[in-house]
Amino acid sequence: MELLTINNVWMMICTALVFFMHLGFAFLEIGLTRQKNTLNILFKNIFIITVGLLLYALVGFNLMYPGEFNGFIGFAGFGLDSPLTTEGALDLTYNEGYTYWTDFLFQGMFAATAATIVSGAVAERIKIGPFMVFTIIYVGLIYPIAGSWKWGGGFLQTLETPFYDFAGSTLVHSVGGWAAVVAVCLLGPRIGKFKDGKPQAIPGHNIPLATAGVLILWLGWFGFNGGSVLSADPTLTSLTLVTTCLAAAAGGVVSALVSTIRYKNLDLTMFLNGILGGLVGITAGADQMSPTDAIIIGAVAGAIIVFAVSLVDKLKLDDPVGAIAVHLACGIWGTLAVGIFGNLASGAQFVSQLIGVAAYAAICIVSSFLIIFIMKKTVGIRVSEREELEGLDAHEHGMDAYPDFRLNEH
Amino acid sequence: MELLTINNVWMMICTALVFFMHLGFAFLEIGLTRQKNTLNILFKNIFIITVGLLLYALVGFNLMYPGEFNGFIGFAGFGLDSPLTTEGALDLTYNEGYTYWTDFLFQGMFAATAATIVSGAVAERIKIGPFMVFTIIYVGLIYPIAGSWKWGGGFLQTLETPFYDFAGSTLVHSVGGWAAVVAVCLLGPRIGKFKDGKPQAIPGHNIPLATAGVLILWLGWFGFNGGSVLSADPTLTSLTLVTTCLAAAAGGVVSALVSTIRYKNLDLTMFLNGILGGLVGITAGADQMSPTDAIIIGAVAGAIIVFAVSLVDKLKLDDPVGAIAVHLACGIWGTLAVGIFGNLASGAQFVSQLIGVAAYAAICIVSSFLIIFIMKKTVGIRVSEREELEGLDAHEHGMDAYPDFRLNEH
Amino acid sequence: MELLTINNVWMMICTALVFFMHLGFAFLEIGLTRQKNTLNILFKNIFIITVGLLLYALVGFNLMYPGEFNGFIGFAGFGLDSPLTTEGALDLTYNEGYTYWTDFLFQGMFAATAATIVSGAVAERIKIGPFMVFTIIYVGLIYPIAGSWKWGGGFLQTLETPFYDFAGSTLVHSVGGWAAVVAVCLLGPRIGKFKDGKPQAIPGHNIPLATAGVLILWLGWFGFNGGSVLSADPTLTSLTLVTTCLAAAAGGVVSALVSTIRYKNLDLTMFLNGILGGLVGITAGADQMSPTDAIIIGAVAGAIIVFAVSLVDKLKLDDPVGAIAVHLACGIWGTLAVGIFGNLASGAQFVSQLIGVAAYAAICIVSSFLIIFIMKKTVGIRVSEREELEGLDAHEHGMDAYPDFRLNEH
Repeated sequence: MELLTINNVWMMICTALVFFMHLGFAFLEIGLTRQKNTLNILFKNIFIITVGLLLYALVGFNLMYPGEFNGFIGFAGFGLDSPLTTEGALDLTYNEGYTYWTDFLFQGMFAATAATIVSGAVAERIKIGPFMVFTIIYVGLIYPIAGSWKWGGGFLQTLETPFYDFAGSTLVHSVGGWAAVVAVCLLGPRIGKFKDGKPQAIPGHNIPLATAGVLILWLGWFGFNGGSVLSADPTLTSLTLVTTCLAAAAGGVVSALVSTIRYKNLDLTMFLNGILGGLVGITAGADQMSPTDAIIIGAVAGAIIVFAVSLVDKLKLDDPVGAIAVHLACGIWGTLAVGIFGNLASGAQFVSQLIGVAAYAAICIVSSFLIIFIMKKTVGIRVSEREELEGLDAHEHGMDAYPDFRLNEH
Repeated sequence: MELLTINNVWMMICTALVFFMHLGFAFLEIGLTRQKNTLNILFKNIFIITVGLLLYALVGFNLMYPGEFNGFIGFAGFGLDSPLTTEGALDLTYNEGYTYWTDFLFQGMFAATAATIVSGAVAERIKIGPFMVFTIIYVGLIYPIAGSWKWGGGFLQTLETPFYDFAGSTLVHSVGGWAAVVAVCLLGPRIGKFKDGKPQAIPGHNIPLATAGVLILWLGWFGFNGGSVLSADPTLTSLTLVTTCLAAAAGGVVSALVSTIRYKNLDLTMFLNGILGGLVGITAGADQMSPTDAIIIGAVAGAIIVFAVSLVDKLKLDDPVGAIAVHLACGIWGTLAVGIFGNLASGAQFVSQLIGVAAYAAICIVSSFLIIFIMKKTVGIRVSEREELEGLDAHEHGMDAYPDFRLNEH
Repeated sequence: MELLTINNVWMMICTALVFFMHLGFAFLEIGLTRQKNTLNILFKNIFIITVGLLLYALVGFNLMYPGEFNGFIGFAGFGLDSPLTTEGALDLTYNEGYTYWTDFLFQGMFAATAATIVSGAVAERIKIGPFMVFTIIYVGLIYPIAGSWKWGGGFLQTLETPFYDFAGSTLVHSVGGWAAVVAVCLLGPRIGKFKDGKPQAIPGHNIPLATAGVLILWLGWFGFNGGSVLSADPTLTSLTLVTTCLAAAAGGVVSALVSTIRYKNLDLTMFLNGILGGLVGITAGADQMSPTDAIIIGAVAGAIIVFAVSLVDKLKLDDPVGAIAVHLACGIWGTLAVGIFGNLASGAQFVSQLIGVAAYAAICIVSSFLIIFIMKKTVGIRVSEREELEGLDAHEHGMDAYPDFRLNEH
């Protein structure tokens, strides 16, 4: 009983921290974009959290953890149990780690994250209605079905050498990242992003909030990774926090270093994205690495960020916040790194990791393409040129984010 | 001993989270008002936290939990015990849930909240001196005396069917809300709020901070409701977090939906206030509801927000941040909902809930009217027209909140 | 096992809270300085956190806790143990309070704080390269060596009446504060700070963020002091939180009161710094004081702030954020207060506290002078006049913090 209580306390705290990451994402996204679209981005983020949680209660949780199933898709029925109203009220001890309620809420906080990642990549030009539809389908159906393949005990879990993704480098971050790629391809770049084929910097309007967003996300990762131990096991939780923080630090430092060498400029944005890259990178194996492994994984992720951002530009993709570099490139790296470093390193594990990456690439690319392409061909997914130039805040919301401040036009 | 330690850890964390709500309130209040009064609002908020805590140590705690008393007012003496300096040093085990110190601090963090609610409603026109006096009397005396009626074991607790208010829909939120109504009536609207009898929008100056405020408040509610279990009981705490979050989500979504249908506009402020309304609504019965109950209670609260904001406008009351709609209307709704939904639902309970609502209405309206009316007739409670137009920051504080930015006049 | 798990959970939470203080420092520093140097300050802060953590893993932890040593300097070797890769993997139980990993991370989060304190004092005019070098040496070597004197079991711990510094009024805050004094002396004041010998106000550009910074720091102090109990002991942890919060409140109120009487102005900045002063002041003895002691210590710290800020001005030192008053003056006061108030009060203790203060003054002044003076005479530590006037953001980083806003020149 004591141990259940402790574990449950830890898991509830981690749930709160993962919830708080949504403020981190919101600050990061508005900070790295222009003021005229601030309110729109905040609206989308608030929509994702609230609707995401309700959908996860309605269908997501029971799609992701369907119990016995065929390994590809299963469903344990609509809604949550309400043991309070039944005789089972006193027997909520779901497992040794935490209660049924804690399990739902912790997983529910994860669910919304995937759509939030996409939100940043498509910012400043997507119509809000289609984005809402995408969010509902992707968070409500695709994320939990894909999640069931591994965390729900599906076919990736039952491989001879099971695919390993501790806290979601692939299951959360790449799932968002793949959809971000698809959405960005179908949407096209913002007006003015490419001039004569060359990428133009469109500076974010509020760097203090972007920085705060990254620090809040780092804080939230204490819960994202720490809670993925699914108990308060002292060794595993504390090792996980150490590897998480060291990878973040290494990612930031290397990213800043590489970008300074390459561009002769102390670029804070690159520093920040390097931290996030390190965090995403360590997430797949945070409980399996030594501190040295963690620093290497984070450092490589930091370097990847610089080159991935540059590659995204070269491909003429416009990702205002660097979501593809952070969540997809480093998500893949972190997932593969489980086969290379730490306790699980082996050829067989590496192959399983590749299989996992490929499986998620498949479901995410196909599903997000179908959702967004159909909307593109029917209702349209992009705001009008005038609306984009004047800002989505004025057009979609009839409000400004900073009405008392004098602003520059961009 | 282990269980005491766990419970105490949980309660300390919840205390920290409730403390953090004060940043949420501060961000929300300044975000939804004009930049020229920002510093003044922050000053008031910092005053409330610091003075509120000291007053609660001096008199509040012992007024609210007086031990044996007549059920209406009791007092266990000035100051806190200092067992460290006595022989009782080693026997601090106050009860099974947590220590004496944790109890004081958790309750102390609640105490300041009531005045903070008022602070938002009277923003941009109240003199700071009289507001300080009001805060001292309301937080130091009225809140704890009113609180003793239920949480201190007073007459509402000893009703045949005891009044139920789990975490303070009435004891905290309505207590603030009633005073807000009284203060707003006595103060009158801001210059320019009503033109030819029609309410004019006075847009808030910093929507990112307002949004952050709501997310921080939601986070804080993990502690506000989760800590009101007064132990780390796994089932009750985790159920409470689930009902709290689902009510918040439902409140936000319904509020956004209703306001979009009614006003043809995706209004972020309404979305945010709907979340707060859902949170306030679930607070009275968060430990007694099923997830479905919680969603219904939150959804109704979300709808109430839209109509209450509109009603406040029709009554020519000027409540810049929507405090009356959020804290009073949804506070009453949530309190009554305990008699309609969940484990306690019954006719008798509903009647007790009505009695509770009426009792708090009486003490709050009478006391806040006396305090504010006397000051209005003596020292005056409203700043001069010139000061209101030029902003309270320049006049009361001689400083600007954003001196490096070019600003618009409003 | 249960007790270890609980203690470890508490320590991990405190670690997260101390980490979060870095956002508090960042907000406070940028809020109290001008917008043109915002990005530069954020870059420095992010640098400190990431590099500080890596250095602490590489050398700091083993310098600070060298095991058996001569009491002045010892070193247990490079890097962290990696028990996962050895047979010791299952025997991580470092002590009864928490794991080896938790210990490292909690202490690592403290390490970076000292440099952050300096960062505020030297803001708006220091060259970033030399600041980075200073950070590396000070966080990587000086802080942990100085820390080993007391927390590592060194000569201050083995005095007949051991020097007492519970959570770092001296070991953290004064260590930063002494270096701040030296750096400010060697750097000189910002252009325009003194006109005809009289100090000029250079208002901070974002008061809401400065206020948020202080509230975040206060929140972080729950972990800074609460975690310094090094277990979840219910009595000690909860007493510590109570003394911490009461000292903060008293510090703020007295500081606001004294400055209002002295300058006839409700100065929010002084209110905020008073809170910080109270927090720094209580830190040395937070576990040894009664609530009344804590209020007195905080109140005196609040008064000290007002006079120390004024004294710093008179000495023609330019400390943009008040770091010397907050961290050095109140750090010394809090350290001495352990000999005057609470459980340890005695003449012998007071003498030991004086010895401790002097020892840290010596190592910090000498080492920081050497580091900074050498750089001043070689590479130079101050940006050019043109860069200072136009802002460090544009020159060192080629970016603006707020590109969409119209700004005033200062």
